[in-house]
Amino acid sequence: MKSIDDIHKLVLEEIKVQNETLEPKELYEPIWYTLSSGGKRLRPILVIQGCQLFSDEIQKAIKPALGIELFHNFTLLHDDIMDKAFLRRNQPTVHRKWDINRAILSGDAMAIQANIFIASCSKELLPEVLGVFNKTALEVCEGQQYDLNFEIMDEVTVDEYLNMIKLKTAVLLAGSLKIGAILGGSGPEQADIVYDFGYDMGMAFQLQDDYLDTFGNPETFGKNIGGDILANKKTLLLIKAKERADSDQLKKINFWYSEQEHNPQEKIKSVQKIFRDLEIDRIIREQVVMFSEKALKTLDLIDTDPERKEELKNFTNKLIYRVS
Amino acid sequence: MKSIDDIHKLVLEEIKVQNETLEPKELYEPIWYTLSSGGKRLRPILVIQGCQLFSDEIQKAIKPALGIELFHNFTLLHDDIMDKAFLRRNQPTVHRKWDINRAILSGDAMAIQANIFIASCSKELLPEVLGVFNKTALEVCEGQQYDLNFEIMDEVTVDEYLNMIKLKTAVLLAGSLKIGAILGGSGPEQADIVYDFGYDMGMAFQLQDDYLDTFGNPETFGKNIGGDILANKKTLLLIKAKERADSDQLKKINFWYSEQEHNPQEKIKSVQKIFRDLEIDRIIREQVVMFSEKALKTLDLIDTDPERKEELKNFTNKLIYRVS
Repeated sequence: MKSIDDIHKLVLEEIKVQNETLEPKELYEPIWYTLSSGGKRLRPILVIQGCQLFSDEIQKAIKPALGIELFHNFTLLHDDIMDKAFLRRNQPTVHRKWDINRAILSGDAMAIQANIFIASCSKELLPEVLGVFNKTALEVCEGQQYDLNFEIMDEVTVDEYLNMIKLKTAVLLAGSLKIGAILGGSGPEQADIVYDFGYDMGMAFQLQDDYLDTFGNPETFGKNIGGDILANKKTLLLIKAKERADSDQLKKINFWYSEQEHNPQEKIKSVQKIFRDLEIDRIIREQVVMFSEKALKTLDLIDTDPERKEELKNFTNKLIYRVS
Repeated sequence: MKSIDDIHKLVLEEIKVQNETLEPKELYEPIWYTLSSGGKRLRPILVIQGCQLFSDEIQKAIKPALGIELFHNFTLLHDDIMDKAFLRRNQPTVHRKWDINRAILSGDAMAIQANIFIASCSKELLPEVLGVFNKTALEVCEGQQYDLNFEIMDEVTVDEYLNMIKLKTAVLLAGSLKIGAILGGSGPEQADIVYDFGYDMGMAFQLQDDYLDTFGNPETFGKNIGGDILANKKTLLLIKAKERADSDQLKKINFWYSEQEHNPQEKIKSVQKIFRDLEIDRIIREQVVMFSEKALKTLDLIDTDPERKEELKNFTNKLIYRVS
């Protein structure tokens, strides 16, 4: 059985095969730029892990795995335009390095390349794989739209927030695993259990991301700490803080989250302090642990050799304590 | 056998089935807005015509036909952002009515919905249909990129221009027909001939469009005449005019196509006159007739009941003399 590191290398090799010399270069250059910029490659790894739950023949999952990575990077490329983000993985975003038109069009081309890689799976499994992929892809767009909607909403509820991260993040992690499982020959029933595992694992993953964005160690996290705070993001942290705050704390929260210009470092520190006073760090960590434990229980239900589950078990356990 | 008008109605019915109440409405509203704004529905009609070449069971081509219409409208939606277009089919473009973010994201969702409709075809034919669709979709992006490239190029050759309209327009018309043919049970060899027919017909279609944009009758054309001239588009008309112009005419062309501000109506009239003096109208019409005749010869080669070819034959003949 291949380790995650081995798989990571395999996927990178496959990405390299992507021809840098396709024409017109104006269209394909930003795709290669995006793909070669790194990232955790979490989704393709999950496709292959999903496959490995049921089969050693991971070769058949490699191209669809790359398709999922292409799709994910396409969404990042377009999200970065919408969010007016300047940096992604420590390099200029495509719309900053070139322009918005290049970012829109090369993103579109990337999404189509994703479809091509996904469609390269076995003919017998193609309808099932495409069913999962297309449904998931549309949900990811819905999640991004809810995220945009939140920017102009006064209040977001816990349920609305959880639904947004479900659509924007968790379903693609779950879908990646499910596609891998189908390719590994799981059959539909087991594939659904794998999906449920991936969903809870994905929720834990995103909530841990939200936690680290506010409480992480800047030296290990890789992104600047406090990005969500500076962007006035209506994360679960803020929603829970508002729920628990007394009138004095609520005043402070409203002050720091007002339109007014603040000193960024001062704002981050002050909000972090309020959140800690309200034990938001503990509350979010509890949510992460709750979703992870639910995921691990579902993993138990998957009908396969327990050895095959080891990697995903370790992976989920590491997720709870990850710092980057 | 169904007439084109019947098919048109069928496709519209199918589009109506699209649920206007999907959530979040911010994502789906622009999709419905775009789909219900009209248009010639040329591509879905071609899918169904392609199917009718080999089969009466057009029901199996309806959803993929709608998928192609969705894909085409997705490209228009994103192209309109890139071209900063204000109007499409006499109503505000999506990025003007709402904003760029809505246009990017609802376009993305539309492309995914297109995939869902395409994937709803018979399982046996799905790999072949997807092969044509994905390849074509990527080519359409390449065509749009070349079109954008032309804006900042000093000179565009005849070959470069023909390659651009091939990718941006002709391949999707050819691909629509081919997908229809495959769904109608043509088999791969006949499907390729149908594609070749569609390619030449598509080239004739686009060149006639270019012709009408400059020489059309404003009362029948539906778009404003002279749009390409005002946008300094490097169409075959301009390329050929520059080839044939004497030094005096070339000076005039360069004057009207300079960065300088011109009175729009004066510019259109002057360029139209230069083009007519250089017999560009005749030359483009000859190209249209040449491609149409080539298309009709290829249509002859398709191995099916001649009656089944009648609609496409009429369609191609009408194309040559169309005024809108």
